[in-house]
Amino acid sequence: MSYASVVDVLAGKVAVDETVTVRGWVRTRRDSKAGISFINIHDGSCFDAIQAVVPAELPNYESEVLKLTTGCSVAITGVVVESQGKGQSFELQATGVKVYGWVEDPDTYPMAPKRHSMEYLREYAHLRPRTNVTGAVMRVRNTLSQAIHRFFHEQGYLWVSTPIITTSDCEGAGEMFRVSTLDLMNVPKTEQGNVDFSQDFFGKEAFLTVSGQLNVESYACSLSKVYTFGPTFRAENSNTSRHLSEFWMVEPEVAFADLDDVAHLAEDMLKYVFKAVLEERPDDMAFFEQRINQGVIERLSRMVDSDFVHMDYTDAIEILKNCGKQFEYPVEWGVDLQSEHERYLAEEHVGAPVILKNYPRDIKAFYMRQNEDGKTVAAMDVLAPGIGEIIGGSAREERLDVLDQRIAEMDLPAEEYEFYRDLRRYGTVPHAGFGLGFERLVSYVTGMQNIRDVIPFPRAPKSAQF
Amino acid sequence: MSYASVVDVLAGKVAVDETVTVRGWVRTRRDSKAGISFINIHDGSCFDAIQAVVPAELPNYESEVLKLTTGCSVAITGVVVESQGKGQSFELQATGVKVYGWVEDPDTYPMAPKRHSMEYLREYAHLRPRTNVTGAVMRVRNTLSQAIHRFFHEQGYLWVSTPIITTSDCEGAGEMFRVSTLDLMNVPKTEQGNVDFSQDFFGKEAFLTVSGQLNVESYACSLSKVYTFGPTFRAENSNTSRHLSEFWMVEPEVAFADLDDVAHLAEDMLKYVFKAVLEERPDDMAFFEQRINQGVIERLSRMVDSDFVHMDYTDAIEILKNCGKQFEYPVEWGVDLQSEHERYLAEEHVGAPVILKNYPRDIKAFYMRQNEDGKTVAAMDVLAPGIGEIIGGSAREERLDVLDQRIAEMDLPAEEYEFYRDLRRYGTVPHAGFGLGFERLVSYVTGMQNIRDVIPFPRAPKSAQF
Repeated sequence: MSYASVVDVLAGKVAVDETVTVRGWVRTRRDSKAGISFINIHDGSCFDAIQAVVPAELPNYESEVLKLTTGCSVAITGVVVESQGKGQSFELQATGVKVYGWVEDPDTYPMAPKRHSMEYLREYAHLRPRTNVTGAVMRVRNTLSQAIHRFFHEQGYLWVSTPIITTSDCEGAGEMFRVSTLDLMNVPKTEQGNVDFSQDFFGKEAFLTVSGQLNVESYACSLSKVYTFGPTFRAENSNTSRHLSEFWMVEPEVAFADLDDVAHLAEDMLKYVFKAVLEERPDDMAFFEQRINQGVIERLSRMVDSDFVHMDYTDAIEILKNCGKQFEYPVEWGVDLQSEHERYLAEEHVGAPVILKNYPRDIKAFYMRQNEDGKTVAAMDVLAPGIGEIIGGSAREERLDVLDQRIAEMDLPAEEYEFYRDLRRYGTVPHAGFGLGFERLVSYVTGMQNIRDVIPFPRAPKSAQF
Repeated sequence: MSYASVVDVLAGKVAVDETVTVRGWVRTRRDSKAGISFINIHDGSCFDAIQAVVPAELPNYESEVLKLTTGCSVAITGVVVESQGKGQSFELQATGVKVYGWVEDPDTYPMAPKRHSMEYLREYAHLRPRTNVTGAVMRVRNTLSQAIHRFFHEQGYLWVSTPIITTSDCEGAGEMFRVSTLDLMNVPKTEQGNVDFSQDFFGKEAFLTVSGQLNVESYACSLSKVYTFGPTFRAENSNTSRHLSEFWMVEPEVAFADLDDVAHLAEDMLKYVFKAVLEERPDDMAFFEQRINQGVIERLSRMVDSDFVHMDYTDAIEILKNCGKQFEYPVEWGVDLQSEHERYLAEEHVGAPVILKNYPRDIKAFYMRQNEDGKTVAAMDVLAPGIGEIIGGSAREERLDVLDQRIAEMDLPAEEYEFYRDLRRYGTVPHAGFGLGFERLVSYVTGMQNIRDVIPFPRAPKSAQF
């Protein structure tokens, strides 16, 4: 018996008149008066289901075929024929139907074939990959992740897994989750009455990482071109469509690079992965275009074709002040830009992705490289039409004296940064990098409105089911 | 100015007589009496450093070049020439040396050019990628991870990121870390006097995952061929050379597959990734062969060429009982095999990798598919010469009634498994998968003895530095 996936049969990889077996789940069944059933089967290998034409002559036609409902699992053996129907290339003339699994009480099957709200589907995160929309999202998500690895690999970057559990709280990028094995009914205390973390698993207070950047810098400062791709965490109580408590980040870090180098790297990477999705997943993208977000394909194509425009923060402020538009948040030099400003710049002023550079140092992190003007740092944000900020990066301060001064000015615990300072004490090099929130990227590419619908099992405040 | 990486110059990708600039860190400096210095520079792009021949005529020869020490960062511009020295293909006739960063007090530089113990290097996890050994490990680690993604992608598998934070403790694979934002100085209690986790971040007690398997099964039962590649955690107090508290796992899960299907998948995957390492990293592998573990290359080559031998657990017990060898742990039907048994089977009895199948059900997890004999389950371990178990997998129990009976027999909290039962209530399918500890794989391939030396920043009891 020869098995084939739905994608291979639909793509003509099985010769006409050959007999194959396709295995998957029933999407729909329709019976004709002539005593024939049409069964659509999907197996996740592509967006489309394949149609099997099942004749009444099959021995289990009455006893089983006519009882098939959405979600039943089957193996259908049949002869590949060209499809007469519109939009389908090939179909199966079934010679045998084997049922693996029935659906217990089809009337209450949570994934019954009707339109479900995204909120409803989230309640069934374990079953929603059976729907068109979640299946399409997860195939695109896979394509993006494969393309990211491929892009960096082709360019000579090494993937580095930075730690998830960290005892350093020096990243300063937000609130952190504690990781512990202490007995909460009996928390050990020191003589001074504080929590005695020396008795905890790691002998110190430990957290989930908020970014791999500081760690991966030590690899850039020895292997030159590296990147992380792993989960990061924020214990922020933000219940919005743009926040997750657990999300994946991509963080390249490049030795001997400056801000412009990584700005171009970001542009190249985005174009590469957008192109991969357009080429490899036209079926899923057609669905997003039609049902989720009209214009999403053109938006990606235009990003692939356009040159990203570089702009100084200081110039952007002038543009925003003089554009005559009323913003909710007023603009002046020194403020952090809001989404409304970012989108105005990318969508209305430039009409293309914008790389905004050289932000005021007072609104940026301690590790960003100070510019000669004494006021700004070599930081950048990539602003994309339709979403705003999608990437943030910077050159890192590689001068020990400047770094130390900044740590002191910001009143940070210097002793936490000894390993980071070592990278500047021993053969320091200019280096730069950026961070990309992977789920933001998937949202952008698919047009999905809520970030919880582009990760298999979303984690958010009061919500970590399954 | 044209930049080139060390690997490109050594591989002859820059034409002889062309001028390029190479940037990296000084490995060694040697001065000849003739007034020439030989400087070796590495940049992480390959195992070897490149030699630059620096003439005394350079303006900064006295003031800077003669002061260069191991670890200093430099850009050396020069003409590419064929090397006269043994073992080197090309070198640079330097026309300029720019120093980026000095080493503060070379005498105390932790990575000074001498043989360091692996224990010592672990203390400097942020600097050890500058050494030959850690650089080589991390390049091989990268090659393995890229090859794993490529293998599954080529075979039509989708990468699925299963959650790191979980509120279900039903995985039963070991002790777990708690994830919490509760104030340890003031733990909230319920009226009954228990910890009130409803006030915690997720509204329930939450943990770090020990395996993505149960979650990824729900994706296999809709998208057919999927795999995870992400971090997992064990809060076991095991301070051994084979245990980490945080490690990466690869877990493929395949719908419509049985135990033999995933046994062959495991064999194909291992051969694919070993081949990738042998082909793509001959430089690093030569180092491991010479300095770390003699025979490591042949061990891999033989695995690529040999057919894995399938053997029943029951037959293996007979072999072990009758082999005349004295084992520390006695053998009889029903016991879990120890490393000494596994290695005897793979190394002495068969002389090739062994896939051991159909273990007694009483020593295996609840989700493994029961065989007809009523005594065994469709579980497998892949045993490799030189290490023992490297992969564990099974067919999953897809029959709801059998699964329920097993959950009851093992006295597991049935209500925790509702989502897992749903997969069996709605279009259940036979499916199977396996788990591969990624760091065990890197250890095996490199011959590194301690698993803490094959992950950038190892986490273990009382140890989560950096």
